[in-house]
Amino acid sequence: MGAGVIGGGWVAYFLARGFRVRAWDPGADAEPRLRAIVAAAWPALTELGLAEGATMDNLVVTPELTAAVGDAQMVQESAPEQLDLKRRLFADIDAATPEHVVIASSTSGYGMTEMAGEAAAPHRLVVAHPFNPPYLIPLVEVVGGEQTAPEVVKWTSEFFRHIGKSVITMDREVPGFIGNRLQEALWREALHMVANGEATVEQIDASITEGPGLRWAFHGPMLTFHLAGGPGGMGRMLDHFGPSLLSPWTRLEAPELTAELRDSVVAGCEEEAGSRTVADLVRERDRRLVDMLRVLGKVPHHR
Amino acid sequence: MGAGVIGGGWVAYFLARGFRVRAWDPGADAEPRLRAIVAAAWPALTELGLAEGATMDNLVVTPELTAAVGDAQMVQESAPEQLDLKRRLFADIDAATPEHVVIASSTSGYGMTEMAGEAAAPHRLVVAHPFNPPYLIPLVEVVGGEQTAPEVVKWTSEFFRHIGKSVITMDREVPGFIGNRLQEALWREALHMVANGEATVEQIDASITEGPGLRWAFHGPMLTFHLAGGPGGMGRMLDHFGPSLLSPWTRLEAPELTAELRDSVVAGCEEEAGSRTVADLVRERDRRLVDMLRVLGKVPHHR
Repeated sequence: MGAGVIGGGWVAYFLARGFRVRAWDPGADAEPRLRAIVAAAWPALTELGLAEGATMDNLVVTPELTAAVGDAQMVQESAPEQLDLKRRLFADIDAATPEHVVIASSTSGYGMTEMAGEAAAPHRLVVAHPFNPPYLIPLVEVVGGEQTAPEVVKWTSEFFRHIGKSVITMDREVPGFIGNRLQEALWREALHMVANGEATVEQIDASITEGPGLRWAFHGPMLTFHLAGGPGGMGRMLDHFGPSLLSPWTRLEAPELTAELRDSVVAGCEEEAGSRTVADLVRERDRRLVDMLRVLGKVPHHR
Repeated sequence: MGAGVIGGGWVAYFLARGFRVRAWDPGADAEPRLRAIVAAAWPALTELGLAEGATMDNLVVTPELTAAVGDAQMVQESAPEQLDLKRRLFADIDAATPEHVVIASSTSGYGMTEMAGEAAAPHRLVVAHPFNPPYLIPLVEVVGGEQTAPEVVKWTSEFFRHIGKSVITMDREVPGFIGNRLQEALWREALHMVANGEATVEQIDASITEGPGLRWAFHGPMLTFHLAGGPGGMGRMLDHFGPSLLSPWTRLEAPELTAELRDSVVAGCEEEAGSRTVADLVRERDRRLVDMLRVLGKVPHHR
């Protein structure tokens, strides 16, 4: 449902996994736009490996909602990010879709509780939030609303894992979910810096692509800092850099670093690291950074 | 100056570029610790290419400050992140270093104006902030204090470029510089989420490594969103997602999206994109994502 950048990206991914797809979009030029997105995505999907029988021909584009979802086995909504529009659309999709079928939303940050208000069968409505482009970025965040059935959350998580996605299943609604909350904090700080003349757009991008962005492609922010304190790991890091939480190094106020928060961050890092010591993780990081510097053409040219 | 994770990483990088290095650290076990850091870094540095004559043997470790800097040609300070300690240390290093030599600081976020207060020759003190590990992450942020000579900022930027680093030269002091401000905003939001039970440490890391982190390794946050609005680029994106700046998708309040801010973000993206259209950038992104999914072992396994 919806043939924009995200909807079109999903169509490409579903086709590559061998599904037949019916796409709905009320726009006059929806079909050529959508087919262009799919065609642009196809070389990358082909290179990564298509499912048996996968073809761009398995796509029907229709301006009729009922024609799109009337015999669907799974529905993915990717309409514009407007709450009123989504609420009306979920009521319409819900009314036209066979009752046992899950209807998932690509929303960037609304909760299903607020989007499902006008639907007759909210138990089968769920958020399945992808990242652009959905045909290449693995992450899908799955979270239900207050009325979503637990088995719908479970089915949706398993469905996306089944088709090759990396799924985070959240146990509660948080505006922006996880990835977008973190991304949005960074984005807002960046906008403040541009607004205040503290950094240019280009400096902001370089400060990430030449710096933390390289680490975040394989170790997240937590595991990255687990390696910042030497062999002592996150515990040592928080003891060393904890006071910087009081520094004005961003406009976002930090939470108080209570003993409880410190311990749960340290424990979480140790759990995530599993049997990997800090020295193991350093070797893993260096191995991956060398590979990435090469593949991204960033090997230093010293004179 | 300083044989911790950052100081040791710098030593490894300088050695790999063929320099002779004198390292100072007052710790009793500084020498074995430092040599272990260098030895751990050496395989990656060797793989990326050593300068002619580069060897780990070009390292002398000393607990005597004067012996370390007395005939230095460039000094890099990487002491613990404590302002009082740094202020005293800069006074001492300044007194012991030949007067024409630049003294740079690896500080994570202090400005040189506040660190240089006790030094006799603050004009040659400058911040050169790296990211961990300094021997692999390209970025160095260079910024002077109020009393730093402009030619010192220029020399330092050119020095780090010369040895293969990717340099951002800032024209003003901002606490946390650029990369750490953005990283710190994300980190603080992550700590809030852990403190409130909204996400686990492992979910936070996965939300980045399986999602935005893959894009940030080559397109920064600005260029990433330039591709989120389809062919209309950042302008279309801000028109579509601008209202989400008012949403509670992070604890950080956004700046007002004035016409001026909108236009400068759009103009900055267009400048950064140069002759690359959005369609060009989409192809570039997909090419790089395919390479990265492969090199990071993230190609989807669909069943």
